[in-house]
Amino acid sequence: MADSEFSLIQRYFCSQRHINAVNRLGIGDDCALMSVPDGYELAITTDTMVEGIHFFADVDPASLGHKLLAVNLSDLAAMGASPVSVTLALTLPNVNESWLQAFSKSFLNLARTFSVDLIGGDTTTGPLTLTVQALGLVPEGQALKRSGAKVGDLVFVTGRLGDAGLGLKIYSGYQCSSTETALNRFDRPSPRVNEGLAIRKFASSCIDLSDGLASDLKHIAEKSFVGVKIDWDSLPLSNEVKRYIDKTEDWALPLVAGDDYELCFTVSPEKVDSINVNCTQIGVVEAQLGMRLQRLGVVEKLEVKGFEHFSS
Amino acid sequence: MADSEFSLIQRYFCSQRHINAVNRLGIGDDCALMSVPDGYELAITTDTMVEGIHFFADVDPASLGHKLLAVNLSDLAAMGASPVSVTLALTLPNVNESWLQAFSKSFLNLARTFSVDLIGGDTTTGPLTLTVQALGLVPEGQALKRSGAKVGDLVFVTGRLGDAGLGLKIYSGYQCSSTETALNRFDRPSPRVNEGLAIRKFASSCIDLSDGLASDLKHIAEKSFVGVKIDWDSLPLSNEVKRYIDKTEDWALPLVAGDDYELCFTVSPEKVDSINVNCTQIGVVEAQLGMRLQRLGVVEKLEVKGFEHFSS
Repeated sequence: MADSEFSLIQRYFCSQRHINAVNRLGIGDDCALMSVPDGYELAITTDTMVEGIHFFADVDPASLGHKLLAVNLSDLAAMGASPVSVTLALTLPNVNESWLQAFSKSFLNLARTFSVDLIGGDTTTGPLTLTVQALGLVPEGQALKRSGAKVGDLVFVTGRLGDAGLGLKIYSGYQCSSTETALNRFDRPSPRVNEGLAIRKFASSCIDLSDGLASDLKHIAEKSFVGVKIDWDSLPLSNEVKRYIDKTEDWALPLVAGDDYELCFTVSPEKVDSINVNCTQIGVVEAQLGMRLQRLGVVEKLEVKGFEHFSS
Repeated sequence: MADSEFSLIQRYFCSQRHINAVNRLGIGDDCALMSVPDGYELAITTDTMVEGIHFFADVDPASLGHKLLAVNLSDLAAMGASPVSVTLALTLPNVNESWLQAFSKSFLNLARTFSVDLIGGDTTTGPLTLTVQALGLVPEGQALKRSGAKVGDLVFVTGRLGDAGLGLKIYSGYQCSSTETALNRFDRPSPRVNEGLAIRKFASSCIDLSDGLASDLKHIAEKSFVGVKIDWDSLPLSNEVKRYIDKTEDWALPLVAGDDYELCFTVSPEKVDSINVNCTQIGVVEAQLGMRLQRLGVVEKLEVKGFEHFSS
């Protein structure tokens, strides 16, 4: 019956004790309540994932639970915010107990890793659609924005680029010998929360890479009224991605593939010595507007086409 | 093309200037930023509406835009919180400009009425699904919870009951001479934000009526470990609902129909003189657990069946 199905869903999500002291009241009332400490601002983000658009219908529910939360935590990381709580709006076509168990376990595991509480939500029936809203704290005036890049700043990325894109290609039929890393990077991105907190003190701007380096970095360039030149040779690539490019000549993959969820940020030359996270310099901020790519000794205009919904 | 369609959607939602001073950064970065004043807690709620479940496929987009925001503001009202900002996650099957215009205009009109800013969101393609998360402020420790009702408290509701339920019946084919009020109450509920703020000083518990009086009041009873007796004769009914009951003998409508979005709250007898909002006493809080109904001079156990998803 309806009532018991609801109880079932609640059982998977409501049994958690709060681990973050700012959360004063969680699931079970009209609203959750949170206390924001003096001197902090609240950072707020929301991301939706829809079956058939953001994930395949037969997706592993554990991967989905992880990724749904990870992409939202990644947005907080890009502002240099500490995640504290999330709400989850779950639209499900039916109640599948093993699916719910795997999904919620993975979602809550990642939440626990970053001391994030699930403080509220809504569960409805309908086509599989999942929306998370994530809340984080950042010292007042210290949030990393897209708009702070200055001419002469150097451009960095954490981690490696293109592995998630290669993972998607493997799911779509590309065959190669070593698939584990790429699939894992596509299915279970690591939100760079600690890196976001670390770079907050010296980075001038930051964005997380969800749609692809060229597309996302363009947002920094536009918001900061500057241009960016990317040096293709300096892009941090895994051996798998290098092999893929050798085989296919699809050298644009690390520039245009989405889902890496690394941080891309700018730092002024004077502050480069402060950098205390694993990252790679991949370009420079220039006065000439627009995006440029240096490759094989030639600098060309970089035409950006990232992941777009509503594409025909 | 994809890019221009995105710009189109953004045009409808991003042109607003912030009107609430707590919002420091809105749409256009990885996160929005908000400043929570000293001595206040943040109230957080989220509600999803899905085509075919919460609204008909041919719903008037202006009504949908209003109702989607109203139901979320209603949750804040039930905590006695002042709404300050919302995010909107919009999953749309296609881009229909006139639909978007009507939807966004109505949504933003209601937001303006209550000084609420749209500070962020996500737009994706997929089956029509809409999720709002609303944020409000409430002085620390003063939020109205479901758990505060005490034996001897009196139970009140704002406004009238059952009109929205009658509206739904009219949409489903019920014929009557006067339909405007009922349809309007179903399509465009008024969130009782000001009433929530007013009763915060003296109410002992509160909930908003989304699923139906009996079902929602049961939450107060359960969370407060008390029972409630409702007096049917005192329920505030419009002439339309009275006529409907006379004609159909469906006297349970105002008890079980959802979507009224009135506030139901409890007040101790000593504080009843403080009441400064239009409301009606409809029952009392008792020590005996459970829900009871007094009607035609007889008190009977009230079996509660509210609106449920996943019902077979």
